[in-house]
Amino acid sequence: MNLRHYVRDIPDYPKKGITFFDITPILKSPEAFQYCIDRFADLYGESGATKIVAADARGFIFGAPLALKLGIGFVPIRKPGKLPYKNRCVTYDLEYGTDTLCMHVDAINADDKVLIIDDLMATGGTAEGMIKLIREVGAEIVAAGFVVQLTYLDGDEVMKANDVRCDYLLEID
Amino acid sequence: MNLRHYVRDIPDYPKKGITFFDITPILKSPEAFQYCIDRFADLYGESGATKIVAADARGFIFGAPLALKLGIGFVPIRKPGKLPYKNRCVTYDLEYGTDTLCMHVDAINADDKVLIIDDLMATGGTAEGMIKLIREVGAEIVAAGFVVQLTYLDGDEVMKANDVRCDYLLEID
Repeated sequence: MNLRHYVRDIPDYPKKGITFFDITPILKSPEAFQYCIDRFADLYGESGATKIVAADARGFIFGAPLALKLGIGFVPIRKPGKLPYKNRCVTYDLEYGTDTLCMHVDAINADDKVLIIDDLMATGGTAEGMIKLIREVGAEIVAAGFVVQLTYLDGDEVMKANDVRCDYLLEID
Repeated sequence: MNLRHYVRDIPDYPKKGITFFDITPILKSPEAFQYCIDRFADLYGESGATKIVAADARGFIFGAPLALKLGIGFVPIRKPGKLPYKNRCVTYDLEYGTDTLCMHVDAINADDKVLIIDDLMATGGTAEGMIKLIREVGAEIVAAGFVVQLTYLDGDEVMKANDVRCDYLLEID
C-alpha cells in the first residue's frame, strides 16, 4: 500500500504558495483507510493506551475507528463553545496569534495513558496544544500518531521538545 | 445495552430553555460505542450501500468506523471553505435563515448507493441538506441512520417527506 497515491496535492490552498495535502482520497478507498487503522493498531496495540484523544474534525475520522479497534475510549477535542458539558481549555501560541482547544473536564483523568491521533503533522501547533491540555490533567501521553507528516516543517522537532514519541504513516518531503 | 445511560442531558444549552443531549459518554465507553456501530452494521450490512456520507463533526465519529466495518468509502460533508478540492454545495432553509453544506465533486457519483449517518436527528435540517446534496448528483439514498432521535421535534416527518428510510438507535421523548 503506497499511501502517497491517496493523498492529493492542492496547490495554492488555503492561500497562494501553500500546497495543501488532501487526505479525502484515503477515506474514499476502504483499503487505504483500513490500512491506516491497521498500521496504527500495529503500532499501539501493546502501548497500554487507555484513551484516544483527537481534534476536530479530521482527527475524529482516524481516532474514532482506532479507539474501537483497540477497545478504548474516544475523547474529542474541539474549539471553545463546541462541547456542551463543563470544559477544560488551553490557549497556546501560534506563529501569528493564539488558538484555544477544549475538552470535557471528565474526559480523561490522571490515571489515563493517552494516545493522540491526527491526520496530518505540519508545524505541530495543534498537537502541542493537545499535549498541554492532556498534561494539565496529569495524564501520561504514550504517543502521537499521524497519517501524514510534512517533513519540511518543524512539527517533529516540536514533538521532540515536548518529549512525545511520534509515528507517521507517510512522510512528504 | 441501554444507550440512554450514555447520553447526558445538558439543560439550557446552547441557550436557556433548550436541553442538549451530549453523546460524548457513548464515545468514552468502548462497549457503548461499539454497540452503536454493530447495530448500524446489522441494519445496513445487506443494504448494498457503496458510500457512507456524514457531516462535520460528530457525524464523522460514527460514520467513519461504520464505513470501515462495511468495507465501503467514507465521504465527509462540511461547511464551505473546509474541503480543499473542488466543491459541490447546496444552500437550504432553516427555521431562521439558511445554511450551506459542501462535498468534493468527485466524492460520490450517480451509481452510488449512499447511507447517511449522523449522531442526532432533531429538526432534520442538516439531514435534508445532505439529501439534497446527494440527490443532485443523481445517487440513490438507501437510508439514514441516527444514534439519537428527539421525537418531540419534526425530524422524522421531514425525512418521510423526503422519502428516506430512517433508523434510530435511541429515541428520546
